[in-house]
Amino acid sequence: MPNLSFTELRIPTLGRCVNSSPGLEREWGRAERSWIPEDARILLDDCIPAPPGVLQSIELAGPRREIYFAPAECKFAVVTCGGLCPGINDVIRSLVMHAHYCYGISNFLGIPYGYAGLNPRFGYAPIALTPERVSKIQHLGGSVLGSSRGQHDVGVMVDRLQDLGVNALFVVGGDGSQRGAREIYLESNRRGLDLSVVGIPKTIDNDLRYMDRSFGYLTAFSEAFRAVSVAHAEARGVRNGIGLVRLMGRDSGFIACSAAIASAEANFVLIPESPFQLGGEKGLLACLERRLAARTHALIVVAEGAGQDLMTGVEREKDASGNVQHGDIGKFLQAEIARYFSQKKILVNIRYMDPAYLVRGVVATPEDRVFCLQLARHAVHAAMCGKTGLVVASWHNRFVHLPVDLVAKGCNRVDPAGELWRTVLESTGQPAIMR
Amino acid sequence: MPNLSFTELRIPTLGRCVNSSPGLEREWGRAERSWIPEDARILLDDCIPAPPGVLQSIELAGPRREIYFAPAECKFAVVTCGGLCPGINDVIRSLVMHAHYCYGISNFLGIPYGYAGLNPRFGYAPIALTPERVSKIQHLGGSVLGSSRGQHDVGVMVDRLQDLGVNALFVVGGDGSQRGAREIYLESNRRGLDLSVVGIPKTIDNDLRYMDRSFGYLTAFSEAFRAVSVAHAEARGVRNGIGLVRLMGRDSGFIACSAAIASAEANFVLIPESPFQLGGEKGLLACLERRLAARTHALIVVAEGAGQDLMTGVEREKDASGNVQHGDIGKFLQAEIARYFSQKKILVNIRYMDPAYLVRGVVATPEDRVFCLQLARHAVHAAMCGKTGLVVASWHNRFVHLPVDLVAKGCNRVDPAGELWRTVLESTGQPAIMR
Amino acid sequence: MPNLSFTELRIPTLGRCVNSSPGLEREWGRAERSWIPEDARILLDDCIPAPPGVLQSIELAGPRREIYFAPAECKFAVVTCGGLCPGINDVIRSLVMHAHYCYGISNFLGIPYGYAGLNPRFGYAPIALTPERVSKIQHLGGSVLGSSRGQHDVGVMVDRLQDLGVNALFVVGGDGSQRGAREIYLESNRRGLDLSVVGIPKTIDNDLRYMDRSFGYLTAFSEAFRAVSVAHAEARGVRNGIGLVRLMGRDSGFIACSAAIASAEANFVLIPESPFQLGGEKGLLACLERRLAARTHALIVVAEGAGQDLMTGVEREKDASGNVQHGDIGKFLQAEIARYFSQKKILVNIRYMDPAYLVRGVVATPEDRVFCLQLARHAVHAAMCGKTGLVVASWHNRFVHLPVDLVAKGCNRVDPAGELWRTVLESTGQPAIMR
Amino acid sequence: MPNLSFTELRIPTLGRCVNSSPGLEREWGRAERSWIPEDARILLDDCIPAPPGVLQSIELAGPRREIYFAPAECKFAVVTCGGLCPGINDVIRSLVMHAHYCYGISNFLGIPYGYAGLNPRFGYAPIALTPERVSKIQHLGGSVLGSSRGQHDVGVMVDRLQDLGVNALFVVGGDGSQRGAREIYLESNRRGLDLSVVGIPKTIDNDLRYMDRSFGYLTAFSEAFRAVSVAHAEARGVRNGIGLVRLMGRDSGFIACSAAIASAEANFVLIPESPFQLGGEKGLLACLERRLAARTHALIVVAEGAGQDLMTGVEREKDASGNVQHGDIGKFLQAEIARYFSQKKILVNIRYMDPAYLVRGVVATPEDRVFCLQLARHAVHAAMCGKTGLVVASWHNRFVHLPVDLVAKGCNRVDPAGELWRTVLESTGQPAIMR
Repeated sequence: MPNLSFTELRIPTLGRCVNSSPGLEREWGRAERSWIPEDARILLDDCIPAPPGVLQSIELAGPRREIYFAPAECKFAVVTCGGLCPGINDVIRSLVMHAHYCYGISNFLGIPYGYAGLNPRFGYAPIALTPERVSKIQHLGGSVLGSSRGQHDVGVMVDRLQDLGVNALFVVGGDGSQRGAREIYLESNRRGLDLSVVGIPKTIDNDLRYMDRSFGYLTAFSEAFRAVSVAHAEARGVRNGIGLVRLMGRDSGFIACSAAIASAEANFVLIPESPFQLGGEKGLLACLERRLAARTHALIVVAEGAGQDLMTGVEREKDASGNVQHGDIGKFLQAEIARYFSQKKILVNIRYMDPAYLVRGVVATPEDRVFCLQLARHAVHAAMCGKTGLVVASWHNRFVHLPVDLVAKGCNRVDPAGELWRTVLESTGQPAIMR
Repeated sequence: MPNLSFTELRIPTLGRCVNSSPGLEREWGRAERSWIPEDARILLDDCIPAPPGVLQSIELAGPRREIYFAPAECKFAVVTCGGLCPGINDVIRSLVMHAHYCYGISNFLGIPYGYAGLNPRFGYAPIALTPERVSKIQHLGGSVLGSSRGQHDVGVMVDRLQDLGVNALFVVGGDGSQRGAREIYLESNRRGLDLSVVGIPKTIDNDLRYMDRSFGYLTAFSEAFRAVSVAHAEARGVRNGIGLVRLMGRDSGFIACSAAIASAEANFVLIPESPFQLGGEKGLLACLERRLAARTHALIVVAEGAGQDLMTGVEREKDASGNVQHGDIGKFLQAEIARYFSQKKILVNIRYMDPAYLVRGVVATPEDRVFCLQLARHAVHAAMCGKTGLVVASWHNRFVHLPVDLVAKGCNRVDPAGELWRTVLESTGQPAIMR
Repeated sequence: MPNLSFTELRIPTLGRCVNSSPGLEREWGRAERSWIPEDARILLDDCIPAPPGVLQSIELAGPRREIYFAPAECKFAVVTCGGLCPGINDVIRSLVMHAHYCYGISNFLGIPYGYAGLNPRFGYAPIALTPERVSKIQHLGGSVLGSSRGQHDVGVMVDRLQDLGVNALFVVGGDGSQRGAREIYLESNRRGLDLSVVGIPKTIDNDLRYMDRSFGYLTAFSEAFRAVSVAHAEARGVRNGIGLVRLMGRDSGFIACSAAIASAEANFVLIPESPFQLGGEKGLLACLERRLAARTHALIVVAEGAGQDLMTGVEREKDASGNVQHGDIGKFLQAEIARYFSQKKILVNIRYMDPAYLVRGVVATPEDRVFCLQLARHAVHAAMCGKTGLVVASWHNRFVHLPVDLVAKGCNRVDPAGELWRTVLESTGQPAIMR
Repeated sequence: MPNLSFTELRIPTLGRCVNSSPGLEREWGRAERSWIPEDARILLDDCIPAPPGVLQSIELAGPRREIYFAPAECKFAVVTCGGLCPGINDVIRSLVMHAHYCYGISNFLGIPYGYAGLNPRFGYAPIALTPERVSKIQHLGGSVLGSSRGQHDVGVMVDRLQDLGVNALFVVGGDGSQRGAREIYLESNRRGLDLSVVGIPKTIDNDLRYMDRSFGYLTAFSEAFRAVSVAHAEARGVRNGIGLVRLMGRDSGFIACSAAIASAEANFVLIPESPFQLGGEKGLLACLERRLAARTHALIVVAEGAGQDLMTGVEREKDASGNVQHGDIGKFLQAEIARYFSQKKILVNIRYMDPAYLVRGVVATPEDRVFCLQLARHAVHAAMCGKTGLVVASWHNRFVHLPVDLVAKGCNRVDPAGELWRTVLESTGQPAIMR
C-alpha cells in the first residue's frame, strides 16, 4: 500500500454557530452521542488498491449540537426547478414539517414555478407553506409549487430573496439548477448576506455524480418497468412481434438498464453510453433478425439519448434549460426496423411505446418516500448550521454534504465496463458490441 | 300499461341433449335446483313504460341437467383474435380448467395467432392446453396464444376444424371476429358438423351491444385513469399547463369517460359520440382559454375516435381487420392548441400523452379476473349442451346467452343523453355543446 | 304468459317541485331529453317466466327538470355511520362537489363521528365542507368525518337538524344506519319539516338487497384477493402447508367467494350461507386430509360468519350497533385443524391470516371511485327534487331510487343455488355438501 | 491521520482457476477491462477519522477472467431455508438463468423444503431446474422449492450432496442457515470435495451485518407501509382512535422504522433496540394520553421483538430454527392500553393489525427484482471461480464477497444513535426516552 495523504472537501459556512439547540435536546431527551460531530467524514473513494495521491473525504450530514440561525427569527424558502420527478412533493412536505417540528420554524415560503418565481417580472407571489397545508401533498404527483426551466439573472434573484428576507433557500433541481444555486450562493456570499443555499439534487435520469442514486429514480424505473412488461406482452401477442420502448435518459441509460433488468424480458438495451450501429453483420438489425428467427418475438428498450449519432441530418433545438434536444430515437428505430424487414420481405409487427410523462408524474414509492424525507431532513439540518453552497446526497449508503461544485460540474454515466451494464449484457444476452 | 306480448330470442342447438351429467352431480352432491332450467330467461328490455309491441326475452346462462357431448370423446379449441385486452389469458385458463375439472375434458387445443391459426397456409401448429400448462398464465399480460387481425376463408377454416376433430370452438374476439364466428357456425351447420361455436366477446372499448360491459374494460380504464392522473400532475406542474391525454375508443368514448370521471380532475372529455368544434366563442379553444384564465391549468381527455370530422384532408387507411384507421386526434389537437395560443401570444405548456398499449397489455384486475372466469365457465356450459351460434355476456347483471347475430350486427355507444355522458358533463363542468 | 299487472314502488316527496333549474340548463346547453322524466322506471324483477301476480317497478335516478329547493337558501349535510369502507371519502367529496358545481349550493355540513355527531351531548361541532376542503380527500382511506356505531334518540337528532337548519341529510351507512335514516325521515315528516333524507347504502359485505353491489365492495375484495394470493404462497412454501384466511362477511360470504374466485387458488371456501361440519367422512377435515394427500398443500378461505353453529359454548356479545358478535371461526378452525392432524400424527403447517382492517381502510379503486361519484350525484339530484325516505342504488345496472324500507328490512345473501356459489364450487372443486 | 495498516478479508477457493472463459468473451465481445481483477477491493470501514489499527478490505464481486469449473461437467444446486421473503423466486430464477446463459451450465437442481431436502430421511426428490421451468416464477410469491426451518446433521447433508454430484450449492437463508452453510463448507473442505458453497443472505428483517440491505426488505417494508397507512385511516375514523400495527422484526426494528417513516403518520415507533416503559409520567401510556388529548387520534407501530422485557411471566418457546419465540407484544399492548384508558374512564377505540404473512408473501418490487438478479449473478460468478465459504452482498453500494463467518456471527441492529432512529424520532416527534 503506498503512502496516502488525506484531504477534506469542506463546506462553506455563514459564520460560527452560537445557538445551541436546547429545545430539541430537552424535548427529545437525546443523549450527547446522537449529534453528528463536525469532523465525522467518510472517504469519497474507498477502493483498494487506492490510486496514488490524495484521498478526499466528505462530511457526514445530520443534526449538529450547535446551530447558526435563531428559529424564531428566520425564514426559509423552497424552489423546485426543471422537469417533474416523483417525490418532489415529499421533499417539500418534509422540508416544511422538519423545519417546523424539529426547529420551530414557522416561516416557510414556497417559490412558485421554479426560478421564474424569483424573478419579479413574472409577478408570482410566494406561497406560505404551513404543516397543515403540506400535510397530504405526498399523495399528489408533480410539484404543488409548479416548476419551470431556464436561467434568470442571478442579481435579480438575490435581490428578490433579500426583499423576501429569506435565510435559507432549498433548491430542488438538476445540474443546471444547482449551477444556478451555486451562483446564488456566490452572489449572496459577495453581498455578505445571511443566506444559506442548500441543494437537493433532482434528476430522474440518475445522472448526477457522487450520489448512490437520486430521489424519484426508483419510482421512475419501477414505472418504466411496467411499460417494458407490457411491451413484452405485446411482442409475444403477435407473430414476429417487436416491442420497442423508449425511456427517459438524455445522457445516461440508468432507467433503461434498470427497467430492462427488472423485467428480465428485454433482448436489447440501447443507451447513450454504448454506441451501436444499425447495419452490418454485427449491427442491431441483423441481431434482431437472428433473434426473431430463433424466438419469433423481440423486446428492445432504448434510452432517449441513445444512438444520436445515427440520426444524421436532423436539426437539433435547445429547450429552455439550454439542453440540446435529442432527435427521437424511438421513432427513428421504428422506421428503420420497418424498412429493414420490409426490404427482406419478413412480416414483423412493431409495437412502439413511449411512456415518457407517465414515468415521472406518479407518486413516489415507499422507498423513495423515505429517501425524500431523509434528504429534506438533512437539508434543513445543514441550513440550520449556516452551511451553504452544498447539496445533500447519499454516498456509499450514508448521507453527506457535497460542495455544490462537485455536482454542478459533471455528469454520471453508465460505465460500459461496470456492474450495471455488465448485468444488462448478462441478463439480456445481447452482444456487447453491435457494430 | 298496454297489452304486451312476449317473444323468446332462441339459441340454436346441435341436437337433443341425452347425456346427463351424473359425474358432476355425484361429485358435487348438488341439489336439483342448482341446474339452470331451460326456460329460465330475463327480459332484454325491462323499462317502464314499455315500448308498444313485443317484449324479447333471453336465455340465462349456466349448467344444464343434461349435456350433449360425451366428455371422454370430445375435443375443444380456443382462438383469440384482434387486439390485446386485459384478461385474455384468464379466459383461456378458465376455459381449460373448467372443461377439465367440471366435465373431464382433457383434449383442449389452443389455436395460435387468431384465425390465421386455422389457415393451414401459415403452418401454425395448435398447442395442447393442459391445466398444468395454463395454471399460471393469468399472471401474464397479452395472449399466450398470440393473436392476429383479418378474415380468412370460412371454408378453409371449417376444413381445418374438421381435420382437427374439434367439437367446440371458443372465439375470443370483437365484433369482426364474432362475425367470423357466425360464418363458421353457419358453414358448419350447413355441413351438419358436430361443432359448437361459442363466442366470448372481447372489446377493450366496451363498444358491443347488449352487455353490461366487456371483459378487460375495467382494467383498461383503471390503467387509463393512471395516465389521466399523471397528466393532471403535469398540467399543474407548470404555468398554464395543459394536460392532453389520448385514450382508446375508436367509435365510442367509454374508456375516456370512465377514466375522466374516476380521476375527478378532467376539464374536457372529447368522445366520438359528442361532436365539437375548435373555433368560435363556444368552441373548445375558447373554452380552454377561459379555463386557463380562471385556473392556470387544464386537463383534456380525448378518445381516439373523437373529432374525426375536424381533420379534413387527412387520408385514411384500413387495418387488417378492415377498420378505417383514424387520424391522430391527439397530435392534431396538440398542434391546434399550440397554434391558437401562439397566435394569442399566451404562453402555454402542452403535455401530450398517449398511453395506448400500456392500457391493454396489463394483467387483469381481480374484478376482471372474476368476470373472465365466469364468462369462460358459461361458455363451456353452453358448448357442453350443444348450443351454438351464441355469445356469452352479462346483461342487467346476469349471465346470458345471446344469439351471435345480435352482437355481430351493431355497436354500443355512449348515449349523449344517458347516464355516463351526463356524469361526465356534471363532473367536469364542460359545456354540453361546444359549437 | 299469465296476465300481468303492474305496480309502482313510489318515493315520498316533500312537495311539488316549482323551481325549474334554468341555470343548469343554460350553462350546460342541455337538450330537453337529458332530464330524466318522472315516470321513467324499470322492473324490480325482470325474470321470465314471471311469477304470478303483480310486477313492481322502481324509479330511475337522475336529474329532474324541476327542482324543489332554491339552491341559494338551502343547507345540506352528510353523516357517515358504522364501520369504514373504501370510498366513503369519494362519496363525501362528490356530494359536496356536485351540490356546489351543479346546483350552486355552498352550504354543506359534515357531521362528525356518525349519528353521535347529531347528539349535542357529545359536543361535536359540524364541519363546513367546501370544494377546496374536500378536493383531495379521495386519496385518503377511511372517512374524514369519522364514524361511529350505535343508535341515538331520533327526536334529539331531528332537533339538532332543525337547529342547524339542514334541508337535506345524506346518510352513508349500512342497514342499521338506514333504519335510523328511516326514523329521521318519519319524524321529520311528522313534524312537517322541509328535510329530505337520502341514504347512500354502505356495506363492505355487499349484503344489502336490491342492489347490484355496494360501493367499496370491489375494492374490498380486491384487497382480500391479495391476502388469499399470499396465503397460497405460504401454503405452497412448506410441506403440507395449509393457508387459512379469514375474511369479512358477518352474514354473507360475498367477499370470501369473490376473492377466492379471483385468486383461482382456493380449495375450500366457507361461508355462512352454506353450513358444513368438521368431522365425518364428508366433513371439512376429511376433505382437507384428502386434498393434502393429493397435493401437499391446501388453501381455505373462510368468511367471519361461517360455521358459527360449530362453536358451541362460546358466549356472544353485541357491538355498539347491536350486531351479535361472532365467535372467531378463523382461530377455531386453526385449532381444530391442528388437533385433527396432530391426532393423526400428520405434520402440517398452518398459516393463518386475518387481513380484516387492511381490507377496509384502503383507498377506492378507479371503478369504485366512479361508482361512488355516481351514487353521490344521484343522491344530490334526488334531494334537490325534494324526494325523501329513499336510498340510491344500482339495480340491474341502472341507478334507481329505492324506498328506504326496502333496504332497511332485509339482507342480501349468497344464494347456495345461484351463480356465485356455483362458480365457487366449480372453480375450487370443493364438495357442495360437507356434512 | 494516524499511521494505517491494511489487511484483506480473504475468501477461500477450491483451487487454482485454469479454465478461461473464452466462450463468454467471444460471444459478448467483451473488452479486457470488463473482468473484475482479483485484487479489486473496497474498505470495510471508510470512516474518517479512522479508528486506530488495521483497516480491513473486502473483495469486489463479479466475473473473473479465469474460472474453476468446466461448465459442461458441473452440476449446481440451490436450497431455500427459513421463512418466506419477497424475491426468493427471483433469486432462484436468476441463478438458473445466469448459470445457463452465461456459463452454459444445464445441470441445476432445486432442493425441496430447505435443508430437509438434503436429508434422505424425508425422501424429497430434487427438482431439475431448467430455464423454461423457472422463466415465469418471479410472478409468484413464496418459494417454488418450498422451505423449512431447523438444522440437520452436516455429515448427512454432505453425503447427500456427494451422492447428487453437486459442485456448487447456493444457500438462500438467514443467519442460522448461513451457519449451516458454513458447516457444509467446512465439512466438504475437510473431505476435499470439489464443492463450492455460496450463500445469498435472506432476512426480511434486514438484520444481517455488513450489508446495505437484504433482498426482499424493500418490498416487505413497502407492504408494511400499506398496513400503517390503513391503520392511520382507522385511527382517524373514530373518536380517540388508536391504530396499533405489529410488524416483523424479531431482533431489530428496520421494517417498523422504515414503514413508519414512509407513512409519515406514525406517532410512536417501538423497536427492540430502544427499550421503553409503559407506566410513569414519561412512559408510553402517558405520552399516548397526551397525544390523544391534543389530536384525538394516534398511531403506534411496534416491531414484534420490542418491549419483550415488559411481558414478565410469559413462558417462551423455541421454533424449529431454535429462535426463542417472542411474546406477542401487539396483543399485550392492546390489552394494556385498553386497561389504562378504561381505568381513566377515557373512551378509546383501539384498532389492532398484524399483517405478518401479508408482508412476506408478496412478489418483489422492481427494485428488489433487480437486486435479487444481481445477487444471484454474483453468486454464480463466485461459484464458477471455485470460491467457497462466502456470501454475496451489497456493501456501501457495491457488490462484494464476504467470508461467511462475518455473516453467521452477528446481527445488525437499528443504532439508537444512528441515522434511521434519528429520522424516526424527528419525523414522529416521539420522545427519545420513554421511561
